[in-house]
Amino acid sequence: MAWQYRTVHCGEVTKEHVGKEIVLNGWVQTRRDLGGVIFIDFRDRTGIVQIVFNPEYNKAAWEVADKVRSEYVLVVKGEVVNRAPEAINPKVQTGEYEVHISEIQILNDAKTPPFPIEDDLNVDEQVRLKYRYLDLRRPEMQRSLILRSKAAKAFRDYLDTNSFVEVETPMLTKSTPEGARDYLVPSRVHPGEFYALPQSPQLFKQLLMVSGLERYYQIVRCFRDEDLRADRQPEFTQVDIETSFLSMEEILPMMEKMVAHVFKETIGVDVPTPFPRLTYAEAMGRYGSDKPDIRFGLELTDVSDVVANSDFKVFASVVAGGGQVKAINAKGCGHYSRKEADDLAKFASRYGAKGLAWIGIKDGELKGPIVKFFKEEEINEMKKRLDVEEGDLLLFVADKPKVVADALGALRSKLAAELGLIDHSQFAFLWVVDFPLVEWDEEAKRYVALHHPFTRPKDEDLHLFDTDPGQIRAQAYDMVLNGYELGGGSMRIYKRDVQEKMFKALGFTPEEAREQFGFLLDAFEYGTPPHGGIALGLDRLIMLLAGRTNLREVIAFPKTASASDLMVNAPDVVAPKQLKELHIDTIVEEEEKVQA
Amino acid sequence: MAWQYRTVHCGEVTKEHVGKEIVLNGWVQTRRDLGGVIFIDFRDRTGIVQIVFNPEYNKAAWEVADKVRSEYVLVVKGEVVNRAPEAINPKVQTGEYEVHISEIQILNDAKTPPFPIEDDLNVDEQVRLKYRYLDLRRPEMQRSLILRSKAAKAFRDYLDTNSFVEVETPMLTKSTPEGARDYLVPSRVHPGEFYALPQSPQLFKQLLMVSGLERYYQIVRCFRDEDLRADRQPEFTQVDIETSFLSMEEILPMMEKMVAHVFKETIGVDVPTPFPRLTYAEAMGRYGSDKPDIRFGLELTDVSDVVANSDFKVFASVVAGGGQVKAINAKGCGHYSRKEADDLAKFASRYGAKGLAWIGIKDGELKGPIVKFFKEEEINEMKKRLDVEEGDLLLFVADKPKVVADALGALRSKLAAELGLIDHSQFAFLWVVDFPLVEWDEEAKRYVALHHPFTRPKDEDLHLFDTDPGQIRAQAYDMVLNGYELGGGSMRIYKRDVQEKMFKALGFTPEEAREQFGFLLDAFEYGTPPHGGIALGLDRLIMLLAGRTNLREVIAFPKTASASDLMVNAPDVVAPKQLKELHIDTIVEEEEKVQA
Repeated sequence: MAWQYRTVHCGEVTKEHVGKEIVLNGWVQTRRDLGGVIFIDFRDRTGIVQIVFNPEYNKAAWEVADKVRSEYVLVVKGEVVNRAPEAINPKVQTGEYEVHISEIQILNDAKTPPFPIEDDLNVDEQVRLKYRYLDLRRPEMQRSLILRSKAAKAFRDYLDTNSFVEVETPMLTKSTPEGARDYLVPSRVHPGEFYALPQSPQLFKQLLMVSGLERYYQIVRCFRDEDLRADRQPEFTQVDIETSFLSMEEILPMMEKMVAHVFKETIGVDVPTPFPRLTYAEAMGRYGSDKPDIRFGLELTDVSDVVANSDFKVFASVVAGGGQVKAINAKGCGHYSRKEADDLAKFASRYGAKGLAWIGIKDGELKGPIVKFFKEEEINEMKKRLDVEEGDLLLFVADKPKVVADALGALRSKLAAELGLIDHSQFAFLWVVDFPLVEWDEEAKRYVALHHPFTRPKDEDLHLFDTDPGQIRAQAYDMVLNGYELGGGSMRIYKRDVQEKMFKALGFTPEEAREQFGFLLDAFEYGTPPHGGIALGLDRLIMLLAGRTNLREVIAFPKTASASDLMVNAPDVVAPKQLKELHIDTIVEEEEKVQA
Repeated sequence: MAWQYRTVHCGEVTKEHVGKEIVLNGWVQTRRDLGGVIFIDFRDRTGIVQIVFNPEYNKAAWEVADKVRSEYVLVVKGEVVNRAPEAINPKVQTGEYEVHISEIQILNDAKTPPFPIEDDLNVDEQVRLKYRYLDLRRPEMQRSLILRSKAAKAFRDYLDTNSFVEVETPMLTKSTPEGARDYLVPSRVHPGEFYALPQSPQLFKQLLMVSGLERYYQIVRCFRDEDLRADRQPEFTQVDIETSFLSMEEILPMMEKMVAHVFKETIGVDVPTPFPRLTYAEAMGRYGSDKPDIRFGLELTDVSDVVANSDFKVFASVVAGGGQVKAINAKGCGHYSRKEADDLAKFASRYGAKGLAWIGIKDGELKGPIVKFFKEEEINEMKKRLDVEEGDLLLFVADKPKVVADALGALRSKLAAELGLIDHSQFAFLWVVDFPLVEWDEEAKRYVALHHPFTRPKDEDLHLFDTDPGQIRAQAYDMVLNGYELGGGSMRIYKRDVQEKMFKALGFTPEEAREQFGFLLDAFEYGTPPHGGIALGLDRLIMLLAGRTNLREVIAFPKTASASDLMVNAPDVVAPKQLKELHIDTIVEEEEKVQA
């Protein structure tokens, strides 16, 4: 038999095929010989179906099947039959059927793979990455890739329907002094010069608005040469969007609907819109985070005023020094041992907290070493604000606002996970808005842009440029989901006078501004429309859609924490001739060589 | 008035808007003051509409309009009215209407641009590239970008409907010794090591087939550090496709339908399928090109056998030496002067032809210096084969087959253009198939792969591995349109024994093969399905769709022939600190510095 293309996919055999002859292409998952009858779980990207070889169906096919091993590639032909009731496997989509094979061809054989091709694998990730081509055979990895493809399609369909134009921007572009570290690409034609890989197409998308394109998008690879964390990759993909003539009140609903469309089309989940909004101040105040997970409570409660005049000097002096005292109420943790409380304190200290005070509620009474310092009315007010009940545990941090937020924010997430407060079926979207436009850089002794120097201030805050730039709120917004920042954006400055005020606030002379931002400022002189946009991290969004916790699970060929590709072995040394053509040489210190 | 988002686009004002109040956003194309009434051609990405300011409509708006100049950004509100019959402008889509403006706000002013924002611009391309953000305001550039976006969408829709999965492959990957020159990216984390930007995702797409993904696609940026021509860019985009379990006879029709879908969806043209196919041998023989433009005839005719024994020694000796004599009949060029014929000879010499012999047909007789050398039966046979008529001009090249093909192939295209033989409304697709698998490299004294070492030979030619590898035809195919290669692909080798024979033919020992192709050969051991694919050059396809002749017209931010971006000024020097972090230094010779 010449091999033939399938008539049906393995995972898609249904009762309509019963009694009919079908052709399948795929891989041998497992093979069992039961009393001279060979059963093979046969797999393709859609799933698995059982195929059966019996000398009674066809002796020649049965003889070939006897030589078959795991991961062999086959084409088989046979008749679909209903399994006997006792043989039905309810765990498999096609578990009610099997295919009695009359013809088989081995398209290819296979060595035994270094790990079995199955989900819930307990194999070192390094091995999975080295043999990524086998790792990607596992059903959950295939599902991730297919989900990712569907999500990208859903983004595009929505944006296309809304008159967005996809424009490709350069990968070989120019290094920018601000921002993260660039990946550089030496030029062969221009000795001593370099391209940079883009950290984002920010510059180009704003220029496309100057060009009058009005609605731009791109699903685009970006690059940052930073030290990696679990949720960072040196190359990552973003859904990059920019619009003209729209206000923030028009852009945000459009983006909400886009994300809702993607969730509906991919995993069938209805995401309610509009998303709730929190100001940056509220988010930091109530959740200790600018990307709060609002699937659970455990909010931070400010008790600074309550304890300001208390006899507990630690609290009183922090408040007197301009700091804060905040608490969270860990419901039902009143029984925690001293050791458990100490562990929480240790955890909080990682976020800069010098201590973690606590009060437990047992038998209707407040207990703990600091209780004695508070007057009755102070106790009563705390009880009221923190909604105290029997069995609660109050946890206090007293420090500068940033430390209080970081420590209690982290503690809040930790406790929620440990106490099982998180509904993992929920997708809790929100916008965080009203970010500060600039923040004071203690080292540089000047204000720096929180987002970038083209972020538009709120109209009603423009007057603060002259008096208190640190209080200006930006027309900037982050989309947050379940404690992750999915992306952010802003309205951009398009008027020259506002841009000049911004540069002045950042301490740039007009000459310095021109030197640093050069032709972009030129471009803005030729009739720039009001514009603004957003960039969403696609990798992270897919990770959340797929219910995973590691970006590498939703990227086909990811890099490790040391930015290596273990499969192709990149980066690697190159031929001296290549470097010579690029007018560069490597400068590797002896000690570095040892490290590498 | 606070500015407001448009209710309708400029180019989309129709009779349904007459009598209604609309809001427009856009740019001032031109402004004319006729007797105290101000007429503005108002532009957005959809087109132009005339807006009119008259103190009678609104005095305040008229006063603001008086300050407006070209490229100012406005929001205006007004009533759509029919123009008087004599004022209708049939050249403009909205030429029957104008908008009487009652409110205006200047959103931004503009300096006078360095060139007018209009089509058919006669401006140096360097200036257009430096001010690309203004160049892209021109309607024809906007149309190109929108067409490109639509085409990409049409590709994706077709592939999605056909169960293809879009998978993103790495940009930071490994340098490969074969092929074109790589762009390199120094690693900060691994001193002395480099990533390479991909020339194509070939490796990864084959690995995805090993992974069982079955149908992969990606619209992906690729990089080649080669010296540039008009139709080359250092970074380019390809539609990259790979499939498993399909044969070439299933892949080619699928790809034809895909391209036909794109043409239909973008420019409304019906592309007939199936595409004609030419073997490589036919294409070279009849058209002197492996990417022939079949919109016109002027085919090459072999007269080697006719002239082999003639008295014209130049021809006879070439044939005796294993060469060819071929001719094209330039219909109606019999009147060409000796100078004109000499110019053609000079042109042919650029392609290696040592001479261009000619015979004209005038008054029923063959004329020209070589006619006397041929016997009557030789003349008659040439007349017959070349379909000679009054006024024709026969042009002969005698040389090695490659030179004959190159010279006459180029001459054929040149003459077709000059003689107006090309129907520019036609899209003449074809497949060129049956490429040789390998070709002899005279320098290396060994066979080299014409495509790559994983290209599958035709089954019926497998026996030639032992006797005459140069005669083996590959299961490779190029899609050709109007003389341009749109892309190419092949079926890949998936059986170990065939791969071993291929490596042997290429002169590799098993160890050398392993060293060069490493883990890809490992991967192929674990159950590789039959697979094959194609890559289409998106930039070139869009160029042809848009009826342009220069790739830079369909790329938003292209590079020049010296691989520079004149707008952002890339490449450029970088800070010494950046190089130090990357463990590299620049080695720039003094003479290079002067050049740079």
